[in-house]
Amino acid sequence: MKPKKLTAPQVREVLKKIHFTGFLGVRLAGLHRDGLTLACAVRKHLLNSAEVLHGGVTATLADAAAGVALHYLLGSHRAITTVEMKINYFRPVSEGEIFARAHLVRMGATLCVGRVDITDERRRMIGTALITYMILANRGAAS
Amino acid sequence: MKPKKLTAPQVREVLKKIHFTGFLGVRLAGLHRDGLTLACAVRKHLLNSAEVLHGGVTATLADAAAGVALHYLLGSHRAITTVEMKINYFRPVSEGEIFARAHLVRMGATLCVGRVDITDERRRMIGTALITYMILANRGAAS
Amino acid sequence: MKPKKLTAPQVREVLKKIHFTGFLGVRLAGLHRDGLTLACAVRKHLLNSAEVLHGGVTATLADAAAGVALHYLLGSHRAITTVEMKINYFRPVSEGEIFARAHLVRMGATLCVGRVDITDERRRMIGTALITYMILANRGAAS
Amino acid sequence: MKPKKLTAPQVREVLKKIHFTGFLGVRLAGLHRDGLTLACAVRKHLLNSAEVLHGGVTATLADAAAGVALHYLLGSHRAITTVEMKINYFRPVSEGEIFARAHLVRMGATLCVGRVDITDERRRMIGTALITYMILANRGAAS
Repeated sequence: MKPKKLTAPQVREVLKKIHFTGFLGVRLAGLHRDGLTLACAVRKHLLNSAEVLHGGVTATLADAAAGVALHYLLGSHRAITTVEMKINYFRPVSEGEIFARAHLVRMGATLCVGRVDITDERRRMIGTALITYMILANRGAAS
Repeated sequence: MKPKKLTAPQVREVLKKIHFTGFLGVRLAGLHRDGLTLACAVRKHLLNSAEVLHGGVTATLADAAAGVALHYLLGSHRAITTVEMKINYFRPVSEGEIFARAHLVRMGATLCVGRVDITDERRRMIGTALITYMILANRGAAS
Repeated sequence: MKPKKLTAPQVREVLKKIHFTGFLGVRLAGLHRDGLTLACAVRKHLLNSAEVLHGGVTATLADAAAGVALHYLLGSHRAITTVEMKINYFRPVSEGEIFARAHLVRMGATLCVGRVDITDERRRMIGTALITYMILANRGAAS
Repeated sequence: MKPKKLTAPQVREVLKKIHFTGFLGVRLAGLHRDGLTLACAVRKHLLNSAEVLHGGVTATLADAAAGVALHYLLGSHRAITTVEMKINYFRPVSEGEIFARAHLVRMGATLCVGRVDITDERRRMIGTALITYMILANRGAAS
């Protein structure tokens, strides 16, 4: 049976439980057929020494976008963990918001792969990521 | 001419200018012939929804370790930017400190590559990363 | 000035000069606005010990697709080299042809990034790759 | 119970069954506590259009080194598959032999990660790779 997708309020609940992305001010910006979009505003404490957004923030947003997208599509009754992530940075960002659009391109029984395209407010690509997640166990079984 | 390495206080100055790692509480834990070690204490706001350290924190620490190591070995008179990063996660961490040991394995004229091994307080590997940096320009020329 | 794209016969000439892909039987399968598609038939000597296509063949095809796409879009008057590649494998292939569709997602002055989606004859995704190329020098300057 | 490592002749048997690496002329160059070294001679048909070794050959050798190392350490009674690979290229090679030294840095119940350092005959690093393997099933159970 195909899992029932989460609703937008449920996705926001999932996001709310991730301490670190809450700390960074990450918000849900949209739901899509094959994933979702998270957004994060560029703020002073998220910058590096060149006064542009730190790559770690972009990596965090990409990782979170793929992970929350997986919860969204799986109906969230699963524990998941990031196996590995690869990210390419195309251009620096110093203001506005950035958007991470996650596409789940492979949904396996154990491993899932997300592609995340990151853009700035002017819709310019600022990076792209490939992330592998592992589904750990069926938490929903007992619930 | 071979660049003169930075001193430990100078490396701490470089680290201090990175807003985001300051925000995460990253500190210099050691200098080595081919790189350095950064450390970060696991705290509540750095966790994910499974109450373990968010992968984005680990990625940020690895990226910063390779970048600061590059400043350390280049003598800091260069602007650098992360081209891409790849990180594998081996085990979750829920307490103590994590350590990112950066080894610069390739120092090219334009591109440099760092390998970063991440361990927990019990010296267990919790992940490993490969990071490519680009040297942008010789800021020292004019100074 | 925007570089003039190569024609299909010119792209085939570029491909013909790559000894290793010739050895594997790689062919041009299509040209697109942002890249191209290469194909390779699964044959006995390209398999691994599980009698499915060796991942090295898929990686070679992806690398070649991004590289030849770059020559195609740059008009080929440039020397390029692969900086790094990342590939995820989704499913094994044991027969027919595989197709590597390269999209150049970032064309910088020095670095270019290609995304390559690999599919089988039934159009199922069998993997995806992210590849960074470096433009080495303007060989066209003297010609 | 800890698995019994394969012997050198058994490792050569494993390698012999991989059609593609046989085709490339890959040989076992050494066994180590945490992995092994494979070697491959640079020959005309393995080059690219710049007359240096094609990156796909290096990627194949790295993938094979990690995979065969896994068979070696697991005692080979397991089916494995490459989940993903990431490789950085440091310098071109045009002659002699290249060596891929695989270190298995993570041996999990399901996922294993290998780091592979690739060198030329003069022991210069020509690249490095990180590769994730998945253990599929216990083929030894029924035998």
